[in-house]
Amino acid sequence: MPLLEDVILENISWAAEEAQGNESSEHAFFSLDYQHVQVPFEITLWIMLASLAKIGFHLYNKLPSVVPESCLLIFVGLIMGGIIYGLNDKSPPVMDSDIFFLYLLPPIVLDAGYFMPSRPFFENIGTILLYAVVGTIWNVFGIGFSLYGICQVKAFHLQDVSLLHNLLFGSLIAAVDPVAVLAVFEEIHVNERLHILVFGESLLNDAVTVVLYKLFRSFCEMPAIKSVDVFAGVGKFFVVGLGGVLVGLTFGMTAAFTTRFTKDIRVIEPLFVFLYSYLSYLTAEMFHLSGIVAIIACAMGMKRYVEANISLKSHTTVKYFMKMWSSVSDTLIFIFLGVSTIGENHEWNWPYICFTVIFCLMWRALGVLVLTFFVNRFHVNTITSKDQFIIAYGGLRGAICFSLVFLLPDFRRKKLFIAATTVVILFTVFVQGMTIRPLVDLLAVKRKRESAPTVGEQIHIRFLDHLLAGIEDISGHWGQYYWKDKLEYFNSKYLQKILLREYDQPKSSIVLLYEKLERKHAIELAEAGQLGHAPSHPSLLNNDRTVITDKKLEDTLNPDVLENIQEILARNLYRIRRTV
Amino acid sequence: MPLLEDVILENISWAAEEAQGNESSEHAFFSLDYQHVQVPFEITLWIMLASLAKIGFHLYNKLPSVVPESCLLIFVGLIMGGIIYGLNDKSPPVMDSDIFFLYLLPPIVLDAGYFMPSRPFFENIGTILLYAVVGTIWNVFGIGFSLYGICQVKAFHLQDVSLLHNLLFGSLIAAVDPVAVLAVFEEIHVNERLHILVFGESLLNDAVTVVLYKLFRSFCEMPAIKSVDVFAGVGKFFVVGLGGVLVGLTFGMTAAFTTRFTKDIRVIEPLFVFLYSYLSYLTAEMFHLSGIVAIIACAMGMKRYVEANISLKSHTTVKYFMKMWSSVSDTLIFIFLGVSTIGENHEWNWPYICFTVIFCLMWRALGVLVLTFFVNRFHVNTITSKDQFIIAYGGLRGAICFSLVFLLPDFRRKKLFIAATTVVILFTVFVQGMTIRPLVDLLAVKRKRESAPTVGEQIHIRFLDHLLAGIEDISGHWGQYYWKDKLEYFNSKYLQKILLREYDQPKSSIVLLYEKLERKHAIELAEAGQLGHAPSHPSLLNNDRTVITDKKLEDTLNPDVLENIQEILARNLYRIRRTV
Repeated sequence: MPLLEDVILENISWAAEEAQGNESSEHAFFSLDYQHVQVPFEITLWIMLASLAKIGFHLYNKLPSVVPESCLLIFVGLIMGGIIYGLNDKSPPVMDSDIFFLYLLPPIVLDAGYFMPSRPFFENIGTILLYAVVGTIWNVFGIGFSLYGICQVKAFHLQDVSLLHNLLFGSLIAAVDPVAVLAVFEEIHVNERLHILVFGESLLNDAVTVVLYKLFRSFCEMPAIKSVDVFAGVGKFFVVGLGGVLVGLTFGMTAAFTTRFTKDIRVIEPLFVFLYSYLSYLTAEMFHLSGIVAIIACAMGMKRYVEANISLKSHTTVKYFMKMWSSVSDTLIFIFLGVSTIGENHEWNWPYICFTVIFCLMWRALGVLVLTFFVNRFHVNTITSKDQFIIAYGGLRGAICFSLVFLLPDFRRKKLFIAATTVVILFTVFVQGMTIRPLVDLLAVKRKRESAPTVGEQIHIRFLDHLLAGIEDISGHWGQYYWKDKLEYFNSKYLQKILLREYDQPKSSIVLLYEKLERKHAIELAEAGQLGHAPSHPSLLNNDRTVITDKKLEDTLNPDVLENIQEILARNLYRIRRTV
Repeated sequence: MPLLEDVILENISWAAEEAQGNESSEHAFFSLDYQHVQVPFEITLWIMLASLAKIGFHLYNKLPSVVPESCLLIFVGLIMGGIIYGLNDKSPPVMDSDIFFLYLLPPIVLDAGYFMPSRPFFENIGTILLYAVVGTIWNVFGIGFSLYGICQVKAFHLQDVSLLHNLLFGSLIAAVDPVAVLAVFEEIHVNERLHILVFGESLLNDAVTVVLYKLFRSFCEMPAIKSVDVFAGVGKFFVVGLGGVLVGLTFGMTAAFTTRFTKDIRVIEPLFVFLYSYLSYLTAEMFHLSGIVAIIACAMGMKRYVEANISLKSHTTVKYFMKMWSSVSDTLIFIFLGVSTIGENHEWNWPYICFTVIFCLMWRALGVLVLTFFVNRFHVNTITSKDQFIIAYGGLRGAICFSLVFLLPDFRRKKLFIAATTVVILFTVFVQGMTIRPLVDLLAVKRKRESAPTVGEQIHIRFLDHLLAGIEDISGHWGQYYWKDKLEYFNSKYLQKILLREYDQPKSSIVLLYEKLERKHAIELAEAGQLGHAPSHPSLLNNDRTVITDKKLEDTLNPDVLENIQEILARNLYRIRRTV
């Protein structure tokens, strides 16, 4: 990041010269050595700039409610890029693809994977995979072939762009970007299923993108393409995707196992969560597997066990630090995206660029329509046409495309591809990103419910799961409930014994939820005590009885009765299934 | 850190060759690109190794109770260095001084500064500065001149080591190392005053070390030394020390001011604590000021305001992450210290090395004796001879000396200096570090009290402060209480209004303590509820009354009375002083 260097160095070298001039002795009272601290100093300054920009937006509450933060950040980046361009009269350096893939992307994906709601994810895994795999392939070939068609029009002067180059371009422009999707969808609060469909697709399509991008890149450099190469490409897709899952799960299980032994040094517990997931990403990248898939598998795999092993404070640290880190990365990515846009590395060709935007929109819309048609035939809970529209419209492109296009080998039309990619990203982030919220309002798309599920609902859901597993078992239909139940059995029988520190009595999620509510309640009590200038406890409890409804039951029940209920909930809901 | 590179690359290049041999196609299912991920991968692996080593020690509870962790880590480093040396038949690379000063040292110093108990620190600031400044200068010249005397003995073949070189060596070997001191003193739990004396000295002597080291270094390169250069050196000491404080306080106040505006984006609050303190360190280093002094001033300055501004969860994250980070840095430093010890960059000269160790011990003991004699004449609360012994004996050397000796310009006897420094570090860390705990037990040195002060004690201390300030004011003696009170007045009148988010009513530390106890109590309630399978709240409160004595008062008092007492404590204790 040698960007600030010039600006700062100019001012500083002047100051240093002056200091030298004044004293001209070895023992100048002030001397300056910027070179020495340059790298960490500039990185810190960039992060500081990003964080201050974020604070700035939130000081005016109106702004972020209309314009998504990602747009504002790109805008800040554009201004900064303009300033640098104006001062130096040369293009500001672009975002380094290595920095992006090795340092900026992993924290965001880790955060996404760790806080992925696993229930809706696995309930919709089939649909998500269909969108991510078939949908992405559809988009790549659709965009690639139709752009090749455009290139054949003589008036556009694009005949030198070959089919392979168009397909290569398609492979990098087709994939929906998780960072951009997350930034926009976190603000609009659509319902959980819609969110997981778009977001899950954007994460899992990485495997497809990696394979197709590398395949077409190597095809471009090969003299002739044999059919065996094409089949190898298809095989490679499974290796890249499943290999990523395998690497991720391996590191995730190791992480869980490690946290068994951290009881005496709580202070480094959070570290392992970060170290192992980062290692899973790097290992996957090293073997040319999908790093994104690996880190998500790692995070989802370890979360449950790590949470049970580490202390509550460590867990708060993990949570907060992950959020903080991903937020910083995210901010930096969008600012750099803006900065990198300014400059002279673009070749402008109106028809190619316009048709790229049109084809991106068109093929995505078509793909969603066709795929959803098949999905809806096999599901009771269908995807409504409103939801389909939002899925198609939410296909934002972002920094991944941008980094991939800069990683292309140099050839004549690289600058055209860069220009087209930049336009597509800016179009999707600005136009689609800014209009999606009004559209969601206008279409009255089902929103996310704000409140957490109550204990009652949790019990109900859990009970239904076991019931459905029983029904599937009896009817001989091996559906998702059957497999889920088998997995749960395997987990409690083997995995937990190896990975959990205290395997005395398995705590069901209901008991955990109860504990969490209890803790929250206790802190509320304390906070209320402060606000009301510490009334004595009994009076607080009286207030409380009228406010927090979940607690009413407990106060009227005998403790022994309550204990019994807990016991029953914790143990027997598992057992019911096995005795069926 | 290209250390693991060779080992890993050898194995991997073999695997890659095999993979290539098997498929020899562009579409090998597995291909490997280690170069690409090398830097982050190796850094992550080193941190992982350090963390796992830490876990390893704690699995055997007996080991860390006898041997300090720092010794164990150096030992692990020695083994690793030996393995690398054995495999490659060349010296393992030494710890890079830049990496040490720019990345490993700041987290430790930040942690130290942020959690520095400010009361004992400021109460003993005079003594600490005396030890840090006069004591360090005493040691530098004592060690330098007496080693020069040794060099004059013809039988030792050391006549070519000049006085300046000896003084330069003295300047780097004299300073007590904060990392080593912290690592050992955190485990032995001596009383607060003794701890702050040794630890404060080790932190603040950085300014002296920086000045003397650079002064002698430049003298070594100058043809003739003018007396003006010597005076410039004395002046520079004030610039380096006070400049560091100024830089630190500036960044600290800015950090506090920034956290006023983070209410809507809690998630990046912890970031500012790290960013500003790191910037203060880098800025100080850039201007050749004392980075350690700057980061400590920054941390101590901002702590109070930042804590009031940021949310409780952000604060937990800051605390935990700081501890985690400093723990990792600390671990890495000791491991690298061990690794770097192995190799061929040593020149062995028995007399020089033995006398270095002897002089280090002797001059420190003498210095402590003489300085304490003066300190005790001006203080009622004298430093006992037992304490003096521990202060002298606790003068551990560590990674700072080690990094400084490698930063020396190349000259004939550099390897001798490296060898002597290594021996002194290993001697102090191993021999003194391992025997200090038994000695503390043997001498029955006053230990730290384990429990936190009660509300009653806090009130008492606060009341005495104001009383003493009043007495000092009346008697016309401008002592520490007078200045403390003036500072407090300035703080509540101006600083808090600018730096705090909610400046409605200033919360005294007593109210804050009360709130903290209340919160802790509430969480205990919840935890107890879980353990005892949720008895209803009233019954818990009954148990509680008998357990937590601090609460008894509250339960018996009327809420209104309690409120009044709080009001009086929070506001009027400040006012009393002003109306005197």
